[in-house]
Amino acid sequence: MTTHQGPVQPTPTATTALRPVALDGVAFAADGFLGRWQRRNATGTLPHCVEQLEVSGALDNLRLVAGETTGEFRNMWFADSDVHKTLEAAAWQLTSDPNDERLRAFVDTTAELLAKAQGDDGYLNSYYTAVKPDLRWQELHYSHELYVAGHLIQAAVAAARAGVGAELVAVARRVADLVVDHFGTPDGPTPLDGHPGIETALVELYRVTGHRPYLDLARRMLDARGHGLLDGDRFGSSYLVDHVPLREADEVAGHVVRQLYLLAGMVDVAVETGDDELFDAARRLWDDAFGRKTYLTGAQGSRHRDEAFGDPYELPADRAYGETCAAIASVQWNWRMLLATGESRYADELERALYNAVAGSTSSDGTRFFYANPLHLRTGHDGSHEDAPSQRLPWYACACCPPNLARLVASLHGYTATTDDTGVQLHLYSAGTVRADVGEIVTRTEYPWDGRVELDVTGPAPFTLALRVPDWCAEVSVLVDGVPVDVRPDRGYVRLHRDWSAGATVALDLAMPVRVVTAHPRVDAVRGCVALARGPLVYCVEQADLPADVVLEDVRIDPTATVTRTDVPDVPVALTARGTVVPPDGDALYRTHASENAAAALTLTAIPYFLWDNRSPGPMRVWIPTTTTG
Amino acid sequence: MTTHQGPVQPTPTATTALRPVALDGVAFAADGFLGRWQRRNATGTLPHCVEQLEVSGALDNLRLVAGETTGEFRNMWFADSDVHKTLEAAAWQLTSDPNDERLRAFVDTTAELLAKAQGDDGYLNSYYTAVKPDLRWQELHYSHELYVAGHLIQAAVAAARAGVGAELVAVARRVADLVVDHFGTPDGPTPLDGHPGIETALVELYRVTGHRPYLDLARRMLDARGHGLLDGDRFGSSYLVDHVPLREADEVAGHVVRQLYLLAGMVDVAVETGDDELFDAARRLWDDAFGRKTYLTGAQGSRHRDEAFGDPYELPADRAYGETCAAIASVQWNWRMLLATGESRYADELERALYNAVAGSTSSDGTRFFYANPLHLRTGHDGSHEDAPSQRLPWYACACCPPNLARLVASLHGYTATTDDTGVQLHLYSAGTVRADVGEIVTRTEYPWDGRVELDVTGPAPFTLALRVPDWCAEVSVLVDGVPVDVRPDRGYVRLHRDWSAGATVALDLAMPVRVVTAHPRVDAVRGCVALARGPLVYCVEQADLPADVVLEDVRIDPTATVTRTDVPDVPVALTARGTVVPPDGDALYRTHASENAAAALTLTAIPYFLWDNRSPGPMRVWIPTTTTG
Repeated sequence: MTTHQGPVQPTPTATTALRPVALDGVAFAADGFLGRWQRRNATGTLPHCVEQLEVSGALDNLRLVAGETTGEFRNMWFADSDVHKTLEAAAWQLTSDPNDERLRAFVDTTAELLAKAQGDDGYLNSYYTAVKPDLRWQELHYSHELYVAGHLIQAAVAAARAGVGAELVAVARRVADLVVDHFGTPDGPTPLDGHPGIETALVELYRVTGHRPYLDLARRMLDARGHGLLDGDRFGSSYLVDHVPLREADEVAGHVVRQLYLLAGMVDVAVETGDDELFDAARRLWDDAFGRKTYLTGAQGSRHRDEAFGDPYELPADRAYGETCAAIASVQWNWRMLLATGESRYADELERALYNAVAGSTSSDGTRFFYANPLHLRTGHDGSHEDAPSQRLPWYACACCPPNLARLVASLHGYTATTDDTGVQLHLYSAGTVRADVGEIVTRTEYPWDGRVELDVTGPAPFTLALRVPDWCAEVSVLVDGVPVDVRPDRGYVRLHRDWSAGATVALDLAMPVRVVTAHPRVDAVRGCVALARGPLVYCVEQADLPADVVLEDVRIDPTATVTRTDVPDVPVALTARGTVVPPDGDALYRTHASENAAAALTLTAIPYFLWDNRSPGPMRVWIPTTTTG
Repeated sequence: MTTHQGPVQPTPTATTALRPVALDGVAFAADGFLGRWQRRNATGTLPHCVEQLEVSGALDNLRLVAGETTGEFRNMWFADSDVHKTLEAAAWQLTSDPNDERLRAFVDTTAELLAKAQGDDGYLNSYYTAVKPDLRWQELHYSHELYVAGHLIQAAVAAARAGVGAELVAVARRVADLVVDHFGTPDGPTPLDGHPGIETALVELYRVTGHRPYLDLARRMLDARGHGLLDGDRFGSSYLVDHVPLREADEVAGHVVRQLYLLAGMVDVAVETGDDELFDAARRLWDDAFGRKTYLTGAQGSRHRDEAFGDPYELPADRAYGETCAAIASVQWNWRMLLATGESRYADELERALYNAVAGSTSSDGTRFFYANPLHLRTGHDGSHEDAPSQRLPWYACACCPPNLARLVASLHGYTATTDDTGVQLHLYSAGTVRADVGEIVTRTEYPWDGRVELDVTGPAPFTLALRVPDWCAEVSVLVDGVPVDVRPDRGYVRLHRDWSAGATVALDLAMPVRVVTAHPRVDAVRGCVALARGPLVYCVEQADLPADVVLEDVRIDPTATVTRTDVPDVPVALTARGTVVPPDGDALYRTHASENAAAALTLTAIPYFLWDNRSPGPMRVWIPTTTTG
């Protein structure tokens, strides 16, 4: 059997604590949560993206440059990246579905198209070739040329690891070599793009090829940043992540996706070069991002205007930007931090983002998407334009998110299990199989609906099986072959060291009571509110579960009452809580301080946040004012 | 004595309840609140604007077109409007300071420049003339050409009423006549600009000239709107106020300044044409704007991204956009609603916006400005770019606000008093004099610092003196010549009808206790918070009055404790309240519901919101969490 590596494959000399299990060492069972998600991605999201590349004109732009069609360039100036991300998704998907001839044909014909569109010198960017040939590499604060090249390289890395699309790899290497030629010498132009993304791509290409100049250039790109060398933007240099040298930074700032892609690249460079200073900067920024600037759903970015993080604790639920791409980038960054350190907190944040912000971005059928992921859709919301629609849309003028989802989910099994010298670590739980050198683990679980995880473990020699105990779990128990084991979580993992050669069954029970959650008191936006959570899932209240005449903003929840399970169609675990409706005391927008109106009792139903907007459209909120606040 | 009319002069046949007192019938005393503000405007803000027109290149753009200089067009494509607004301010100011030769020279030389820059056909727009001559009138969704023309016309209206700058009036009439020629026939191009503003200008020019085609065109412009005829914007047609026919609208939406300028024009057209349907639409939109979409300071617009109102009750304090121009437009719209109806609620909202949002936009020395006017500057705020700076800035890339302030404040005495068949109405109180046909009123008051207003009233024949009782005032008393008068407010005004021929002294006492204010419970952003207000002034807590080690977001206020006065330098009335500091219980951003840490007592100082950021820079908040909420 061929071994296909997945995303993020540190070289043997990299200073990481953990190594990912190969992509085809992990398989999700079709009936597990992640398996179903991945299947929906394969049959719904990915074909939808391929189709939209035609509809949006992204492929035609390349055909224009290749001389295969005539007309005008259409769409965003970085629309090539939609093609590249879809290619990457297709490559990963082909490791699971090697016989999908349609998908293979898409990869092959698109790689051929890219080869035709590529210039003799290796340059490949349909917008700058068709529209602004004289400005090639001349407006990097704006152009996204290196960003687009980065996505092409990432597609090629996936193709190389999946063993498909040799032509794609050749095209991308020519692009990478041109970039190295152009930017790779200290006396050449400064290697900076207003939108990061190429840094991690270059490191991954180095990992695939062993060609050191890619890694060296990525490192130079990091050190060139933060000196204000990019032309200033109207939102300032922090928008371009060019406001402070990365090694000195101690706060995440500016455009979230740009900041997070850069952070993934920082970790990649740090572990490949043993650069502790760089890694320490990434740690500091992580503490800031996850300690002060992350939504309960794992979404990041509270500002629509400049797509920025926002100030510390500035986390409005209704105006949450929480771009889908940012949540995906958070998964990518946290996975790298986890590999580097083996610390469970990174897996905790990866899980939070994955099951809430990322999962919630996509409709149940996999073909409609949110770009922004608010935690509150107000009654009377004006959803008339795509900046903050009331419902998921099939595509966007700036279509970065859907193909980004496709590539993440197609490779999702690459983000679940790792190995180190002691054995195997399971970070995410879903029914399926993990095969590593030291042994094999078959998992049966209804996770995230249920905290019971049963594992059949075998292996020729003794090893340590480390099972992650999520930070939300206060009570864990383990049986091995039906016998209770007195084992406490050690740095976030239950670690079972034994001889598995005869095979053993492990039952991990992660207690999953409903949690009534509050935010840090400096989060003004949700003062006096609580949210419900169970396991990794954040819950929300939707208008669809309220009486028609009840305005969502008038609903209160009793935070002390017991929350129980209830039945809602198509929702495996819905919750019900005691609450009230408080009719506003008159229309006045401001009044002198007084107590609220008498409240009428109401039974509240809550469903997982990621399932919102799959029934009749309407208001939704995660944070619910309490009966004790008003 | 010449009579100089001020802004908004309905014709004799207009269907308005009230008529403004002529501009030179009202004079603010130099030592009163509004008099000092107006003086600061004359000596600080207006000269600063004149200077910045040179620095920013706005005048050079016109010189370029006039052939007086060479170079490139600089600044925003609608930068001519900065010149026009400054001219309008200068014209109003010359009615107060007729001997200011420097100001008169500015008006004369600039009018001469405009005449030279004007095309033979009357077209006058430096950007389209210099940069896009072929696209004149071709991209009205974006061009601001009619908006710019509107500001020129408004400057000319001021010049005509002030009796200065005859050349300016001639230039503006040529522009207006060209616009009527081009857009004035039903089979011609649709008379729509993405940015309204010309509508009210055309009505005012009709009022000055009696030339009916200006009024007719303004009316046609209103009826052309709302059919999606403007090229769509990335923020949708509501951004251009083109999403619903105005007569059918029942919600304010989209870009606030555009919406409010249009509403002022709607009222002008409605009262000049007796169009009740149009006026009823303006009333409906007012109810929506002031019932669901206005900040406590009178600021409007909660969204930076598209400068929009936001959804109902979406009023975040920290991300308040509250553009200064929007607050100015609110004053202009409310004044027109007040004239049309005589209803005090419009004066109440005019006062709220004036004393808080408008006043707070300008520094104590009159030369630094906020464009956005938040009600909370967070600890750790990133004020690195002008979208949301931590302190007022001397100028902006888009410099619409400062000259808009200059023209409003220069004509502010035109917004205080009216007459009708019964007598005189005083809407705003400041030391000074009002002379109307029926009589004269000399006012002595420390308002807004004190609610005592003393008036010497004389008049040859009996008339009714109507004195506004603001909506915030629950207790009012009146003495006439020292004798208590048992008079209750009638539709928001104390109405004193008598023979004033012998002269009488009226003492109006508006009780001004500190108010502890809450917001409608649907305003999620300030749940569990109260604000302090006294008279028309909203108060805030500034870091400058807190111990250095106290984080503003950790401060709580006891809403039941008595608030008293305290001394703060340069603040006539500062307040002190009982509060606490609650150190956060650990760093976790999210935790299970529990009570807060033990609190330490703290004495809180609050100053008027409009005076914030005049000491050491630092965090500020209007809405303060209560000790009872956490």
